[in-house]
Amino acid sequence: MSFEISDELIDQVKHLIKDVNDTRLQEILDEIHFADIAEIIGQLNLHQATYLIKLLDSEKSSEALMELEEDFRERILDNLSVKEIAEELEEMDTDDAADIIAELPEDRAEEVIAEIEDEKHAEDIKELLLYKEDTAGGLMAKELVKVKETWTVAGCVREMRRQAEKVTRVHSIYVIDKEGKLKGRLSLKDLLTASAKAYIRDVYIPKVDYVNIETEGEEVARIMQKYDLEAIPVVDHETVLVGRITIDDMVDFIKEEAEKDYQMAAGISQDVEADDNVWELTRARLPWLILGLFGGLGSVFIMQDFEDVMTNPRIRDLFFYTPLIAAMAGNVGVQSSAIIVQGLANDNVKGSLWKRLLKEISLSLINGVALALLVILFGIVMGYEISFSLTIATALMSVIIVAALIGTFVPIILDKRGIDPAIATGPFITTSNDIFGIFLFFYIAKLILGF
Amino acid sequence: MSFEISDELIDQVKHLIKDVNDTRLQEILDEIHFADIAEIIGQLNLHQATYLIKLLDSEKSSEALMELEEDFRERILDNLSVKEIAEELEEMDTDDAADIIAELPEDRAEEVIAEIEDEKHAEDIKELLLYKEDTAGGLMAKELVKVKETWTVAGCVREMRRQAEKVTRVHSIYVIDKEGKLKGRLSLKDLLTASAKAYIRDVYIPKVDYVNIETEGEEVARIMQKYDLEAIPVVDHETVLVGRITIDDMVDFIKEEAEKDYQMAAGISQDVEADDNVWELTRARLPWLILGLFGGLGSVFIMQDFEDVMTNPRIRDLFFYTPLIAAMAGNVGVQSSAIIVQGLANDNVKGSLWKRLLKEISLSLINGVALALLVILFGIVMGYEISFSLTIATALMSVIIVAALIGTFVPIILDKRGIDPAIATGPFITTSNDIFGIFLFFYIAKLILGF
Repeated sequence: MSFEISDELIDQVKHLIKDVNDTRLQEILDEIHFADIAEIIGQLNLHQATYLIKLLDSEKSSEALMELEEDFRERILDNLSVKEIAEELEEMDTDDAADIIAELPEDRAEEVIAEIEDEKHAEDIKELLLYKEDTAGGLMAKELVKVKETWTVAGCVREMRRQAEKVTRVHSIYVIDKEGKLKGRLSLKDLLTASAKAYIRDVYIPKVDYVNIETEGEEVARIMQKYDLEAIPVVDHETVLVGRITIDDMVDFIKEEAEKDYQMAAGISQDVEADDNVWELTRARLPWLILGLFGGLGSVFIMQDFEDVMTNPRIRDLFFYTPLIAAMAGNVGVQSSAIIVQGLANDNVKGSLWKRLLKEISLSLINGVALALLVILFGIVMGYEISFSLTIATALMSVIIVAALIGTFVPIILDKRGIDPAIATGPFITTSNDIFGIFLFFYIAKLILGF
Repeated sequence: MSFEISDELIDQVKHLIKDVNDTRLQEILDEIHFADIAEIIGQLNLHQATYLIKLLDSEKSSEALMELEEDFRERILDNLSVKEIAEELEEMDTDDAADIIAELPEDRAEEVIAEIEDEKHAEDIKELLLYKEDTAGGLMAKELVKVKETWTVAGCVREMRRQAEKVTRVHSIYVIDKEGKLKGRLSLKDLLTASAKAYIRDVYIPKVDYVNIETEGEEVARIMQKYDLEAIPVVDHETVLVGRITIDDMVDFIKEEAEKDYQMAAGISQDVEADDNVWELTRARLPWLILGLFGGLGSVFIMQDFEDVMTNPRIRDLFFYTPLIAAMAGNVGVQSSAIIVQGLANDNVKGSLWKRLLKEISLSLINGVALALLVILFGIVMGYEISFSLTIATALMSVIIVAALIGTFVPIILDKRGIDPAIATGPFITTSNDIFGIFLFFYIAKLILGF
């Protein structure tokens, strides 16, 4: 069933736009899912894209708009009239509509809201704009089905039919008291199997997971995953039911979070994509490279102190090993920090710090001994003096232990202070470990070889 | 509502197990969600964990079992009788039950299946065992609600009530013809709003997304995300409806995939977690470190060729810059590869390779010039000869361009050949870029300074 958008289809659409052949365009696009239409639009120029959005029914264009990349969507919206945008928003769920409004310039946003015909919808959107992004309030939608505990099942089904028209997917029916406070839930299945005359208060499930409007998005994602929820109600400070979050919105959130961590580990500081322009990519990448450069210049300083080693042919080969030492310090540091950062995100870094310290030291000892043996073997093959090989092996082992400890404990400390530990992966840990590693290497060499 | 498991609760549970106070244990655990029970069990020893699993109702213990870590679950299952395991499986959805069976030794698995009382359930599990892991067949469950197109809505509601008992969550009702072939779907909402006398064939939605039993898990995840689906039906080669996949299972899959890529980028080759034991962690980490070590020894070889530089005090400081060059080559390579790998995963690496080549070169030129200027500035402050600073700046720029090209094109080439491009992030790209970088650095220095 996988639908592939062919280059021919794109070309056809472009030609039909050029020929202003609206009838044929409608025919073709009618058959296509909005997510695929968004993909087609993503490959058109601004003029063509705007043309298609205007041509399509708001029902379909509004869904396609939500799937577009933010930058491109903003440029399309610039080309639409206030009235046209309001028509799109009319068809969107409140959470999507609020996201779009938040992307508009302030004065335009107000004009658009004023143009929305459905007053309840406009009010709901305005309410959502009050909440902070990435909190439950900012993530939730106002669309949900709620019934009062005093109703009968039959009355509830009647009311539900009315409310359900606006709600694309009914996951749960929420039960509230007369003050609007969340009391529990009912599934559609329960409703189908209960007697029509029963009262809701006698059949509903009083246990219901919920989050507060201020709950952080990450925490919402964690709860929904842990308890396998497909939707979660959101309440205000008086436990009044104000909205709900569905899992499909959280999937996007979870993915974005994972991608952000991944990019952070790779030394990319903003949310960029392969097809962003050169300047955006530079802004995301250059700062980390500059950090790396300063780190590198730091090692230059350290090595200058050991310049005399170069005049001693017996030991000057030490300098050949600085990239190796730096690389190993960096690799070990990144490994340790990645495991900890992931563990912190999944909430499974438990137990005492001392135990973790011991574990990291034994782990690095095992790795260190294995690698040190390889270095000694290499030295034998190359015909180095044994004291020279031993120096490098010892230094390597110490560097690995220190790098593992830095990689493990820097994220833990950051996390304890409320800083996102993910910044301690990637270039940050590599750079600091490079410097520490090289310093340690020469210092240990000096101790052993006595120069 | 967030429920936190306190150390006191864990201690209390441990004491109650020791005192064999089953009544009190039951009382406490009755109030707790299975996901939280799993978290408690995760902090007990094997004896205590087994005790709790045996004590709990299969309904609850089976759900808790599924949430445990695989290793620990296997050890608990070792302590259960064939009959006890069968009782757990009886309560599980077929997909979970099949996963558990797949973890058991073959002869034990057969005994367990033979003990399952519900014959249909046992057969469904056996069927699922035939499909490959990480394909739609291996991911799907047999639990779903299906109705025939020839039925009336009223008959359908009756039948649905019967079927729905076994299905925890009804997302969609699937409509089949008399041969069991998938024809379309109905939502519960549609069923509630349709007339009781209408025939299903007149009210169902004939458009339905589906996947084939052989569709790869990643593709299923992509489709479900793209089309915002909460469940997708799975068909066999004759389009007969055989199962369905729900989004909550895919969330776990998507997260695992993202974590795997992240770990790969960090140089961790297996799915390990912060609390795995030292040997598991070593097995996951050491191979990449050895790769890094070989890379480092490779640079030793390259530098030996330039050993004479050390006898020339005017230029021997070049050796101070090898860690810097290696670090920059590594950082740039990881940045480029991470963006491409993520772009490939999200299917937005489009357009011609020439355009991408041009883009990477301009991007690295911008970054390279900025960093080169900083190096020259550093040289002026340090009082280096200008020719020396220019050499390092030029070499750095060239290294950055080459590293970016390697980082960009290695993943693209791997992907074209059907190899997971994620292996080209992290240590692999860092190590190869280290070697290339150092070689290029000395070679360019030789050309400019003429030694």
